[in-house]
Amino acid sequence: MTSYCLTDIAAQLGGRVLGGGGVRVTQIATLENAQPHHISFLTNSKYRAQLAGTKAGAVILGEADADATSLPRIISDNPYAYFAKVSALLNPLPEAKPGVHSAAVIGDGAKIDVTASVAATAVIGENAVIGAYSVVGEGCYIGANTVIGSHARLYPHVVIYQDCVIGDNLIAHAGSVIGSDGFGIAMDEGRWIKIPQIGRVVIGNDVEIGANTTIDRGALNDTVIEDGVKLDNQIQIAHNVRIGAHTAIAGCAGVAGSAVIGRYCLIGGGARILGHLELADHVEIAAHTLVGKSIREAGAYAAIYPLAKQDDWRRNTVHLRHLDELAKRIRALEQEMELLKGKQS
Amino acid sequence: MTSYCLTDIAAQLGGRVLGGGGVRVTQIATLENAQPHHISFLTNSKYRAQLAGTKAGAVILGEADADATSLPRIISDNPYAYFAKVSALLNPLPEAKPGVHSAAVIGDGAKIDVTASVAATAVIGENAVIGAYSVVGEGCYIGANTVIGSHARLYPHVVIYQDCVIGDNLIAHAGSVIGSDGFGIAMDEGRWIKIPQIGRVVIGNDVEIGANTTIDRGALNDTVIEDGVKLDNQIQIAHNVRIGAHTAIAGCAGVAGSAVIGRYCLIGGGARILGHLELADHVEIAAHTLVGKSIREAGAYAAIYPLAKQDDWRRNTVHLRHLDELAKRIRALEQEMELLKGKQS
Amino acid sequence: MTSYCLTDIAAQLGGRVLGGGGVRVTQIATLENAQPHHISFLTNSKYRAQLAGTKAGAVILGEADADATSLPRIISDNPYAYFAKVSALLNPLPEAKPGVHSAAVIGDGAKIDVTASVAATAVIGENAVIGAYSVVGEGCYIGANTVIGSHARLYPHVVIYQDCVIGDNLIAHAGSVIGSDGFGIAMDEGRWIKIPQIGRVVIGNDVEIGANTTIDRGALNDTVIEDGVKLDNQIQIAHNVRIGAHTAIAGCAGVAGSAVIGRYCLIGGGARILGHLELADHVEIAAHTLVGKSIREAGAYAAIYPLAKQDDWRRNTVHLRHLDELAKRIRALEQEMELLKGKQS
Repeated sequence: MTSYCLTDIAAQLGGRVLGGGGVRVTQIATLENAQPHHISFLTNSKYRAQLAGTKAGAVILGEADADATSLPRIISDNPYAYFAKVSALLNPLPEAKPGVHSAAVIGDGAKIDVTASVAATAVIGENAVIGAYSVVGEGCYIGANTVIGSHARLYPHVVIYQDCVIGDNLIAHAGSVIGSDGFGIAMDEGRWIKIPQIGRVVIGNDVEIGANTTIDRGALNDTVIEDGVKLDNQIQIAHNVRIGAHTAIAGCAGVAGSAVIGRYCLIGGGARILGHLELADHVEIAAHTLVGKSIREAGAYAAIYPLAKQDDWRRNTVHLRHLDELAKRIRALEQEMELLKGKQS
Repeated sequence: MTSYCLTDIAAQLGGRVLGGGGVRVTQIATLENAQPHHISFLTNSKYRAQLAGTKAGAVILGEADADATSLPRIISDNPYAYFAKVSALLNPLPEAKPGVHSAAVIGDGAKIDVTASVAATAVIGENAVIGAYSVVGEGCYIGANTVIGSHARLYPHVVIYQDCVIGDNLIAHAGSVIGSDGFGIAMDEGRWIKIPQIGRVVIGNDVEIGANTTIDRGALNDTVIEDGVKLDNQIQIAHNVRIGAHTAIAGCAGVAGSAVIGRYCLIGGGARILGHLELADHVEIAAHTLVGKSIREAGAYAAIYPLAKQDDWRRNTVHLRHLDELAKRIRALEQEMELLKGKQS
Repeated sequence: MTSYCLTDIAAQLGGRVLGGGGVRVTQIATLENAQPHHISFLTNSKYRAQLAGTKAGAVILGEADADATSLPRIISDNPYAYFAKVSALLNPLPEAKPGVHSAAVIGDGAKIDVTASVAATAVIGENAVIGAYSVVGEGCYIGANTVIGSHARLYPHVVIYQDCVIGDNLIAHAGSVIGSDGFGIAMDEGRWIKIPQIGRVVIGNDVEIGANTTIDRGALNDTVIEDGVKLDNQIQIAHNVRIGAHTAIAGCAGVAGSAVIGRYCLIGGGARILGHLELADHVEIAAHTLVGKSIREAGAYAAIYPLAKQDDWRRNTVHLRHLDELAKRIRALEQEMELLKGKQS
């Protein structure tokens, strides 16, 4: 098991060591569960009281909490990011053995870097390219001519259709599908006819895609996912969508066709973005919110119906079908009130 | 690369050629992106101004716009459908080599048409039937006794359970699951017991099923998807649902058990149809709308909470918990007003 | 085909036989569709009239309906559960042949019980354990060190990541993913960095997981699914969630990180439970409802916007953006009313 002393960690990741740089830790844990071989962390001064009872051998703290404990500690401007980095240090991904498993199937003309790994039952299409140190998991399918950069980690059962372009450092989880046809149909004399989806999916660097998330290829132009975008599980990205760099989207959200989402947006779980609209940079959408029009201004937006006990919900909700009438009755009352007041004065 | 002149296209697809039938095109593109070897299209007169700047070699236009440009052009009653057909002509699906790949696994008694194609790592169950010219992609699984018609295109990683019946021309995208057990459980002395799901999924002709969409088999009777139904990605169709012919459903929608949806309905993305209810033909449901009761009349329906800046949303939404009280206060005001007016007259 | 007489059934499952215990049945069917070789059932006295026309050879009835027909019948305290048990008796799962298919790939050190079955194209990771009588379907992937109990039934294309712990009697449907990384990211100087997800997924006994449902592994601690939990299709369970025993969740629901859901809860389709909150035991959440705060008291809760024709919806909904103003105008009217009444008295 890997172990690091605080001085080693700070040498690699920065930060200021206080109270005992020689303490060795092997794993990261919450304040509540930590044992003496663990390093823990406090990312919000509000929970400073939890420091008292911890059995952690060391902790990561922000500057404001630097003196909140006498435990061996590392002080960082951004203790949450520091925690992430320490955890990455203590938990390196298992290395995949370079090479192509004998139970993988490789199409003619595919170029697989000698440092890349292709697992059993994976299938690589004709003329596809797998970059250096990339790992293609069990049962993955990579379509013809698709190009994947370096250091990708495709967990088992990722499907990427033909002709897609993927940057470096992709993480794609099981069951994610990239490049499936967009939903393009035209009504013709009582029958739907299919519109061929001839665009691609183009994905930048440092993108993560969650389990069972789907990203459709463009109808004519491309669907584009810019650098640093993070997608949780079971998200649907429709054709011709563009998602700006460093935007993060929580699980079960859906983005309809040709929507353009800005940079550094945060989209809540189960939110729905309708098609052909734009979101500015730094827009935050609450969970389970439908966005039906463009948002031109950064900020937080919501559209959530409030939860209630079912009986209360029913009693109040029934009036929503008559809100216009209620508004008119208020208007009428105001007019009558003016009239009465006029008579009195 | 395939190229067609306008006269050839019109000979195959109908329409009226104006301004130079000999112009050859190799691909379709938007007015904005088109180059001289492209054919483009205008499907809505509202955007007629875009015709001016296009570099397209030819365009598809409706009758109303027939004279809106001097470019070589094809005039059609339904330019959107015509565009779809031209695109299909210019972008034929890559042909799959007939035959069974050596890394596919075929169950005893399975009947695979000699013109059909079964790709590497696909598994075909016992006594399953794969019709003429059908393509079963990499990693697909077809359960025992399932029958698939002709000209199906199953993209990689489609799973169809046992005993299902699929018509001709199915398109099924990666990760779609057909015939999984419906969610049938009965409470028995504090524990759920499973209700076996012994119905099938029966799918008509010309159906398309999106990536990671799921269609459960019936509990006792069948789940039925009629001809020409188009399902986008990540849709959930529960047991014993019937979806009428030519209905189209957008991504992330869900239909609960035993719902019966009419013909030519349009269901928006993320909409939810509760169980045991009926939708008439030609019903349109807005995105993110819950349908909790049957709809007997064609038309458009919605149930969407309006989007607002989070502060505005909070300030307004708080009153929803007191709507019934607000309504009563309005009623009380009206009564007092009547009383006052009575006294004055 | 298996056939049972009513006396045999009651001997195995209990219940009281009336009107002809020797009648043999081979299958279960609805009252409407049943034929003489079928046994049918009535679980709600409300539909007693349907008994009259049925062609069923026998029926299952509750005590209240014991004399509602002269057909051969079995009387049970819980006719719905009894129906489930009879159906299980008449429809045993097809047995899977024990052993490892020659086209499966087994990692070093994996322990597969001699009574278990591993199908073609399945991949079992290093040191994984597959318990007695468990069936691992085609294309499944079981990660390194994962332990699966006895009598599991993994349908094709189930993915379970490394280090997970699964109890007995799991049913997992196609495309379900267990143990994928939770959505853990930290912002660091304009870029998201990944927080390693080092917890596991721990699943109790008698759990069923629907098609394309995803359950993320914990960030530091585990994600826990207790005994008897039933999950429908396309559900997303985020990292560090705990779901109490015998809770049932309908399709397309999502539970965000670190939420703790009680025992015997019922969560409707498409519902969303936000993160870091708690639901008491026996809480029922309506379909398509967002739960944004903890619920401490058992009972039924809802947050559904009412459906309307689109024109009515638009006319009424517009006022939601002005509810606070409407409430203030009512307050103003009340004050003016008091003033007027004061003047008059």
